[in-house]
Amino acid sequence: MPIDLSSLKSGDDLLKRGFAKMTKGGVIMDVTTVEQARVAESSGAVAVMALEKVPADIRMAGGVARMADPMKIKEIMEAVTIPVMAKVRIGHVSEAYTLSALGVDMIDESEVLTPADPHYHINKKEFKIPFVCGARTVSEAVRRIFEGASMIRTKGEAGTGNVIEAVRHMWAVNTGVEMIKSADLDDLAHMASRMSLPYLREKELVAEEVYGDKGKVDLKSLFYGVGMEGIEASILEVLKEIKEAGRLPVVNFAAGGIATPADGALMMKMGADGVFVGSGIFKSRDPNEMAKAIVDAVENFEDYEIIGQVSSGLSGMPGIDVEHMGEDLKLQNRGW
Amino acid sequence: MPIDLSSLKSGDDLLKRGFAKMTKGGVIMDVTTVEQARVAESSGAVAVMALEKVPADIRMAGGVARMADPMKIKEIMEAVTIPVMAKVRIGHVSEAYTLSALGVDMIDESEVLTPADPHYHINKKEFKIPFVCGARTVSEAVRRIFEGASMIRTKGEAGTGNVIEAVRHMWAVNTGVEMIKSADLDDLAHMASRMSLPYLREKELVAEEVYGDKGKVDLKSLFYGVGMEGIEASILEVLKEIKEAGRLPVVNFAAGGIATPADGALMMKMGADGVFVGSGIFKSRDPNEMAKAIVDAVENFEDYEIIGQVSSGLSGMPGIDVEHMGEDLKLQNRGW
Repeated sequence: MPIDLSSLKSGDDLLKRGFAKMTKGGVIMDVTTVEQARVAESSGAVAVMALEKVPADIRMAGGVARMADPMKIKEIMEAVTIPVMAKVRIGHVSEAYTLSALGVDMIDESEVLTPADPHYHINKKEFKIPFVCGARTVSEAVRRIFEGASMIRTKGEAGTGNVIEAVRHMWAVNTGVEMIKSADLDDLAHMASRMSLPYLREKELVAEEVYGDKGKVDLKSLFYGVGMEGIEASILEVLKEIKEAGRLPVVNFAAGGIATPADGALMMKMGADGVFVGSGIFKSRDPNEMAKAIVDAVENFEDYEIIGQVSSGLSGMPGIDVEHMGEDLKLQNRGW
Repeated sequence: MPIDLSSLKSGDDLLKRGFAKMTKGGVIMDVTTVEQARVAESSGAVAVMALEKVPADIRMAGGVARMADPMKIKEIMEAVTIPVMAKVRIGHVSEAYTLSALGVDMIDESEVLTPADPHYHINKKEFKIPFVCGARTVSEAVRRIFEGASMIRTKGEAGTGNVIEAVRHMWAVNTGVEMIKSADLDDLAHMASRMSLPYLREKELVAEEVYGDKGKVDLKSLFYGVGMEGIEASILEVLKEIKEAGRLPVVNFAAGGIATPADGALMMKMGADGVFVGSGIFKSRDPNEMAKAIVDAVENFEDYEIIGQVSSGLSGMPGIDVEHMGEDLKLQNRGW
């Protein structure tokens, strides 16, 4: 796939975003074994995500979900020629550096694993390796891009086989981008200021505790040495990039609940640059067929004859209703 | 490991803090048997914590958890050459003197055991033996140091294999230290006054009961003969020590949920002086391998090739999700 580097930023960001862009238009599949990785590759996946369990099983197992065993990731890296991604816990800098040293191609700082840091995501600008992060809203996407993410995906609701949350998040990001496009500079500055507030929270909690006054926060160093002014200025830059490009300045994939070829096509029609499929493939009756069918549907997302053909005789994973799921059970609520 | 005594206080405090400092950079492991203690020693632990049950089992067993059987502690003391620590219940002065007479090297006044005193921690200044205490915040750390603790550790959430609470507490202490560093003397006095308030609580309850007026408290003797003025003055001294040193004046370890080599490395990267590992080792599939791997990761916490190697083929304890745990089930809420 040719990469259009002209619209990307310079330096490290250029390389990192360029790598993410290589996967554009494609399907990235969760795999837990070498065999699954081979199925994914031969089905036309543009990359695989090496995991110990697919999200549906993580959800069922409960407990604590962590970075996968490096040995397992390595086996998968040796088995396929397409890029291999792997997940780290939100804020787990040491897991991220470990995967980076292992030589994976991209890291997913993912709410599907149990978060390691209650306040902060990883400072991804510190890394050479590109990161993808989940987002429910344009504000979350902007914060992750400010932190150095080279790719965004909807959080959706992983492991449910239920596309509604991915659709919800894609709407929120798309509508947010529209608002940014039509905003003037004053509005953008106002947005930047609002979007910076979560970086204050941890310091406010401590100020409340030691001074009894959450206003007593030193605004000079809030996120890895960057102060409030710096955060607002950088976030304003991201907003300007969005306004200028008319879209997020990094690729934006759909993820979290995509379980059928038609689901993949729907997300592409909504403007997704590609699709992550997790439990949807290896929890279906015939993963081999499902993997190929979703790739075909994503690549031909407005060719409904093809989508009808590849959907014939397929059976999606049973899935979980999100409507009646308690807010505390939703993985999407991790990180903000 | 060489001890830098120059930065420590004089007299007993010098000895007690010096002993705590000897364990700096290392891993202290919970052990319940002589065999486990030998595994810990041969894996490179700098000390062991002799217990009847690891926190995960204490959590599962419910009921009342107390100081371990002295016979068991003695067996462990005889089996290894590294220092042996043991836990007492919060406020249980008599358990503490018993362990001291037994000859253990350090006492952990620990929220993992069932608290014995609802109001006060042990007056640790009265003892020759050094103590370590847990803290969620810088205020808790300061109170424990005022009471004579020679070492602080994050409370985290013991027995969960979930690192998020240890990270939360390390942020709170680090940010608190930053605020103390940048505070002027007026601010420090204000903080000292706030941090002294919990010592009033028990007297207030009784004044409320006998006078119907919690203001009717004699402020002259609140904590083992020390009155409000004395407490505030001593706490102010601790705050000044922190401001001067730019850190807690005692070693600060991470504890409560560390379950993988990367977890240990993360806590070191956050500034921990060392790491306690409890259930994380002897609840993992291969305790021997896990023990060595965590020691290697803590000693080389920024060498990610090593961390990747030692993490390969390891399997961490299953773990417990803290997100959905009731506040009443969190051990960290014991003591303040």
